[in-house]
Amino acid sequence: MKPIEQSFTVQFQYGVYFTAGLFKPDNTVFTDVLQQDKGTTPRRVFFVIDSGVADAHPQLADEIKDYAAANQGMMKLMAEPMVITGGEEVKNSLELLQRLLEAVNIHGIDRHAYFVAIGGGAVLDMAGFAAAISHRGIRHIRIPTTVLSQDDSAVGVKNSFNFFGKKNFLGTFTPPFAVINDSDFLLTLDDRDWRAGISEAIKVALIKDAAFYKQIKQDATKLAHRDLPAMQLLIHRCAEMHVDHIGGADPFESGSSRPLDFGHWAAHKLEQLTDYTLRHGEAVAIGMALDVTYSFLKGMLTEAEYEDILELLEDLGFAVYVPELSQTEAGTGHLSVWKGLQEFREHLGGQLTIMLLTRIGAGVEVHHMEEPLVREAVNLLQKRHQRQPATNL
Amino acid sequence: MKPIEQSFTVQFQYGVYFTAGLFKPDNTVFTDVLQQDKGTTPRRVFFVIDSGVADAHPQLADEIKDYAAANQGMMKLMAEPMVITGGEEVKNSLELLQRLLEAVNIHGIDRHAYFVAIGGGAVLDMAGFAAAISHRGIRHIRIPTTVLSQDDSAVGVKNSFNFFGKKNFLGTFTPPFAVINDSDFLLTLDDRDWRAGISEAIKVALIKDAAFYKQIKQDATKLAHRDLPAMQLLIHRCAEMHVDHIGGADPFESGSSRPLDFGHWAAHKLEQLTDYTLRHGEAVAIGMALDVTYSFLKGMLTEAEYEDILELLEDLGFAVYVPELSQTEAGTGHLSVWKGLQEFREHLGGQLTIMLLTRIGAGVEVHHMEEPLVREAVNLLQKRHQRQPATNL
Repeated sequence: MKPIEQSFTVQFQYGVYFTAGLFKPDNTVFTDVLQQDKGTTPRRVFFVIDSGVADAHPQLADEIKDYAAANQGMMKLMAEPMVITGGEEVKNSLELLQRLLEAVNIHGIDRHAYFVAIGGGAVLDMAGFAAAISHRGIRHIRIPTTVLSQDDSAVGVKNSFNFFGKKNFLGTFTPPFAVINDSDFLLTLDDRDWRAGISEAIKVALIKDAAFYKQIKQDATKLAHRDLPAMQLLIHRCAEMHVDHIGGADPFESGSSRPLDFGHWAAHKLEQLTDYTLRHGEAVAIGMALDVTYSFLKGMLTEAEYEDILELLEDLGFAVYVPELSQTEAGTGHLSVWKGLQEFREHLGGQLTIMLLTRIGAGVEVHHMEEPLVREAVNLLQKRHQRQPATNL
Repeated sequence: MKPIEQSFTVQFQYGVYFTAGLFKPDNTVFTDVLQQDKGTTPRRVFFVIDSGVADAHPQLADEIKDYAAANQGMMKLMAEPMVITGGEEVKNSLELLQRLLEAVNIHGIDRHAYFVAIGGGAVLDMAGFAAAISHRGIRHIRIPTTVLSQDDSAVGVKNSFNFFGKKNFLGTFTPPFAVINDSDFLLTLDDRDWRAGISEAIKVALIKDAAFYKQIKQDATKLAHRDLPAMQLLIHRCAEMHVDHIGGADPFESGSSRPLDFGHWAAHKLEQLTDYTLRHGEAVAIGMALDVTYSFLKGMLTEAEYEDILELLEDLGFAVYVPELSQTEAGTGHLSVWKGLQEFREHLGGQLTIMLLTRIGAGVEVHHMEEPLVREAVNLLQKRHQRQPATNL
């Protein structure tokens, strides 16, 4: 009997909006976003708030309630905003995931209602995953509150949950309904969360955009001293580059190439080895330092550019080394991060594909790394760190 | 700051193939499908087999191993085929879901390996869900073994898992890599599984294709007596109509309209009320009988067509009534299936949209149903069933 061929295309569209004071009475960004659905009845909306954000902004839940009341023709809260614990370790908690799914069930949040999450990357990853697998996907609006989530993780199409002790073992590619970046949330970040997300901007600049790298270098002192306009500029450009890349050839990553994961193979493993006490962005800074050093040792990158990059990381207050980077596996004697390389390949699937640097602004993909050279890079970073330990971690 | 607009399209493509003796030495369908990936190294393949299928085909696992060995240049088994319990009740088992995820983890099944499931709709739904959420989606090949999964559920883009006692509460829209229908599996089905899937063909014929309905009517005696060519014809046309519809305007169902769910609002609830002892297809037959009767009582459908449809269901051996259809809710006195209407709306989201019939081959969507008329329809079916009870359930 004749085969039946299925073929269709699906268009995905969403905006990343920038504002301040999102739930202040005269701010229309949120209701403007809701009205994109062209509905005629008040949208049913449910909010999940990261506990870290709720603590730093104790008035937030009331602001949201007042905002909903003032816009009752356009929106209606389905329940009190729900506060859940934030931080990467929550992405390992089946209990928290279940609480999110329970909220969907209890409040009757359906595919035409809005599941809104306000928080750092971990809460957004987990809430996004819960939204993506409930009723085969309910509408999800992301309001990221950290530099890392505003400039990278929240503007993309991924969600995730850690399982079997492996980062992002579970997850889907599911574009959000919208992303809203509110700069007010940046003001209350602690120094680590302010800094951590800068590494993703350096990452994307290093592999794709020398001009952006130059701008970050120029703004380094301002950024280190919490200058908000400099940070907003960095976030906007970084988000834009991530959005552009994702909307390009392979949004749902069916191939093996993931240039945006520059520095990430070691980073993911370091997060796990440090029991997630290292922030993702901090781990990425170390992972980049490792791959930049490796590129230099491999003869691909000049010493001058290698030094320039390491200095930038250090000027911004990033540690370029943690003891876990030197950790070895009992029995095999392999570096633990070396095992991370295998896990990284497994998570992506297919051929190992790692981005290295040939110069600032230009990455190149390789399919093989040499363990002795990785060790040498680790040792070099260790020495560098002993000479000039980061004080701000 | 300027909003960033994300917009991209993703093309989804897969074939539904028909064969017999899929893993016989000279059958190339499976390796042909694998070669669609244009890979050059042997594909790593993992098989999950429904225990019902493994029992009826005890040689299957060995056939697969021999087939893989004979085609070692093209494929390589990642582990022994894994046998898991089948039947709708497995879709409630977190333990089984976890076993599938563990297999992905233990065997290192990545996004470029193949996770193949052989079985009835429930095993395929659950295996498809596990594949969809592992590493953000691993390649999934479906080999459906029942009439229902070959003519409907397995050829589409949905997977699911029951949660909070609600059918398909969890799930995603994730197109498979390929679907392969092997008619040999139909030969060993028990009579209930042979019959149950016919209801989905009647469903799609009733709402869309009077000629197909006529063909099923003509073949009714053959179908009731397990004539394989008649069944293959029915499966092919039914699968084709489902594939066409899904590839149409709204593959991932962002709207409220779901014409293919004709008869399904009551069916889903009846499955739950009978603790899944009623097969999905059997429940759909009753759900259709209810909506056809309702359409008649509402004055939309002629008595002659109403009678014709009910007779067809009965001729094929379907019960058009089970006692759970008359069950009422303690306290409210509402019919339990009436509550199913609310759950159905909630699962789809948005406005309640129910397909009713105006004539054979033509459905019409309504946004409201009358409870007294539903009761009357239930009573009519109850009387009809008492007059002529199905003997084959």
